Amino acid sequence: MKIVIVGASGTIGKKVTEALRGENEIITVGSKSGDVQVDITSTESIEAFYKQIGSFDALVSVTGNAHFGPLKSMTNADFSIGIQSKLMGQVNLVLIGQRYINPKGSFTLTSGILSDDPIVLGANPSTVNAAIDGFTRAAAIELENNVRINAVSAGVVEDSPHYFPYFPGHIPVSMDRVANAYFKSVFGAITGQIIKVW
Amino acid sequence: MKIVIVGASGTIGKKVTEALRGENEIITVGSKSGDVQVDITSTESIEAFYKQIGSFDALVSVTGNAHFGPLKSMTNADFSIGIQSKLMGQVNLVLIGQRYINPKGSFTLTSGILSDDPIVLGANPSTVNAAIDGFTRAAAIELENNVRINAVSAGVVEDSPHYFPYFPGHIPVSMDRVANAYFKSVFGAITGQIIKVW
Ligand SMILES: NC(=O)c1ccc[n+]([C@@H]2O[C@H](COP(=O)([O-])OP(=O)(O)OC[C@H]3O[C@@H](n4cnc5c(N)ncnc54)[C@H](OP(=O)(O)O)[C@@H]3O)[C@@H](O)[C@H]2O)c1
Ligand SMILES: NC(=O)c1ccc[n+]([C@@H]2O[C@H](COP(=O)([O-])OP(=O)(O)OC[C@H]3O[C@@H](n4cnc5c(N)ncnc54)[C@H](OP(=O)(O)O)[C@@H]3O)[C@@H](O)[C@H]2O)c1
Repeated sequence: MKIVIVGASGTIGKKVTEALRGENEIITVGSKSGDVQVDITSTESIEAFYKQIGSFDALVSVTGNAHFGPLKSMTNADFSIGIQSKLMGQVNLVLIGQRYINPKGSFTLTSGILSDDPIVLGANPSTVNAAIDGFTRAAAIELENNVRINAVSAGVVEDSPHYFPYFPGHIPVSMDRVANAYFKSVFGAITGQIIKVW
Repeated sequence: MKIVIVGASGTIGKKVTEALRGENEIITVGSKSGDVQVDITSTESIEAFYKQIGSFDALVSVTGNAHFGPLKSMTNADFSIGIQSKLMGQVNLVLIGQRYINPKGSFTLTSGILSDDPIVLGANPSTVNAAIDGFTRAAAIELENNVRINAVSAGVVEDSPHYFPYFPGHIPVSMDRVANAYFKSVFGAITGQIIKVW
């Protein structure tokens, strides 16, 4: 299987890449790191990226920024960070990638617990994560050629202790459980599912 | 109570306006219709609008466009319609409006059933509706001075028969139930809730 992992060098992406490797052909991707580069905030960059890698069986996206900050002083520009990067970056990976993916291929996106369980400073990621989940449910019923799509929605992860103070009372989730969720999406048969790792 | 209704002339907004009127001061708003005009897709327009109306007790938003069309040919530009109008339009009504709303005031936004129950051609509204729900849950825990926020998420409504063919098997919801959901948000005490009318 040819598996493309956008965000492969990240905290979560590293563990996902290990878990998916097996006998598969893995293409690691980042904006600066990896075998191939893409900037998910640019549709031109995404087009060029797919032309470069050619057809593939699975696209795993473990990337995307959002803005953390107080609602009280939040501006449209702050809010646009999550919209353009984590949300539209991943949506455009699918809108454009549907023309390059092999039949029976899969897209696996990344959302996160804040969709359902908000924290102070998290209005932007809460919005964007919920949006990715909604997109995933909807895209699943229209993708052609048995192409599947799921989203992994993790809690704050073990390997990101710098986030713990912002998540009081949240129980960090193990990297094994998180990586396994991506494995389930790629090698299983489900579609339109939000795989919650909470 | 001074109640501002953006989208008051619309299919749903008309019924909401009737239901909320009672002894209250109602300000009806649209991009072309109503007592006051605003274009929710422009932050400058929203700023000017709030300066014009001054402080208020409740802002009800029953507006926002999204793009309906096949996923197969959907572009970033198509997708941006719902992002800029229904999502960011309503988010910006809150981000900017939090500086003008009275203590104990409320925001009531509009999402919709497609967040959870997708239809063919609906990837953009599914995404945007889910996003509004996520924003509502998150903003509720940060708004100051006991200001509340809820979203009304209705199924396809009785008064929009032109939409029925796109919603096979969906049972249209009565206008009374929908209007009542907005009434509950404005005159009740809940916050951070998605009031489902399905
Ligand atoms: N960490 C957590 O606790 C947690 C929990 C739940 C969900 N999440 C979500 O999981 C995702 C990954 O989180 P993480 O903590 O692993 O992030 P991270 O360590 O910051 O890694 C980000 C990855 O994305 C790549 N990247 C950054 N900007 C990019 C761009 N514009 N285009 C393409 N690739 C880009 C980076 O590679 P380059 O440096 O080469 O660009 C890197 O591989 C995020 O969406 C995050 O919200 C994280
Ligand atoms: N109809 C349904 O079955 C249904 C079901 C669930 C959810 N919803 C949601 O409910 C909301 C209202 O739906 P509807 O069917 O009642 O819509 P509608 O009949 O088209 O009414 C739209 C209203 O919004 C105003 N408006 C349009 N663009 C605006 C802008 N840029 N700035 C400010 N105001 C603007 C319009 O007034 P002007 O003409 O003066 O601009 C009008 O009052 C939408 O978000 C829709 O997605 C609808």
